[in-house]
Amino acid sequence: MQYYSYENFKNDTTTLIEQVQVFKPEAIVGIARGGLTLAHCMAEGLEIRDVQTIRTELYDGTTKREKISVFGNCSFKENIKVLVVDDIADSGETLKAVMCALAKSHPSVVFESCTLFYKKSSCYEPHFWIHEAKDWIDFFWERDYT
Amino acid sequence: MQYYSYENFKNDTTTLIEQVQVFKPEAIVGIARGGLTLAHCMAEGLEIRDVQTIRTELYDGTTKREKISVFGNCSFKENIKVLVVDDIADSGETLKAVMCALAKSHPSVVFESCTLFYKKSSCYEPHFWIHEAKDWIDFFWERDYT
Repeated sequence: MQYYSYENFKNDTTTLIEQVQVFKPEAIVGIARGGLTLAHCMAEGLEIRDVQTIRTELYDGTTKREKISVFGNCSFKENIKVLVVDDIADSGETLKAVMCALAKSHPSVVFESCTLFYKKSSCYEPHFWIHEAKDWIDFFWERDYT
Repeated sequence: MQYYSYENFKNDTTTLIEQVQVFKPEAIVGIARGGLTLAHCMAEGLEIRDVQTIRTELYDGTTKREKISVFGNCSFKENIKVLVVDDIADSGETLKAVMCALAKSHPSVVFESCTLFYKKSSCYEPHFWIHEAKDWIDFFWERDYT
């Protein structure tokens, strides 16, 4: 297990802000809860005021496989570019479900995604990511308040 | 001007988490952008998964006074308690407009508010706050990424 401090986060987020500028995002969607601090700090760095959130819940599907519900009513201007932000693509199921739900409900909007960490075994690879995750990441927001 | 570091934030947020427990919130609304990191960390500490966001824009009203528009479609279960989170009540206009808009669109929900800082000259006093703001606060999320 690796403690991921605010100092680590600050350095990586600064790098991620530089990387995503090629996409020229005009709005940000943070995936709650893990993506919220990252969404906030990236929005500050990118000078984007339009920050919205979405959250997911796991439930047991009828076939005993876990399924994901996506909650949150985002609204966007037509034809804009939106960056979807989460802390980690672990199994990748959350990001995959969110990207799919957003694309379906906002067909004129272009979505790209970014995370701090990406696991090679993830079923979804974000457009931008910083580190490959090899063990469990103990994010400061999960550790410092519990 | 006072630099408000992550360490300051961590200590104050821990105190705020303890204070708001008397209200027993079941969901959190963070006001973008300033309230997002606080909303995230409080949600972790309070073990609340339902975190939504709202944002405001200032515009010039016809009478030359500034007016505030509130954006964001929150949805809540009936009769729950929701904590509205922002970094600071400065003029207080943002929080006042948000609390008013939420109460109007969700009449069965109980809303209370909290901030890290409160200015005595604010037109709205949050239910919970930690410090009186006497000069400009330079929050780490505003400073560290620009």
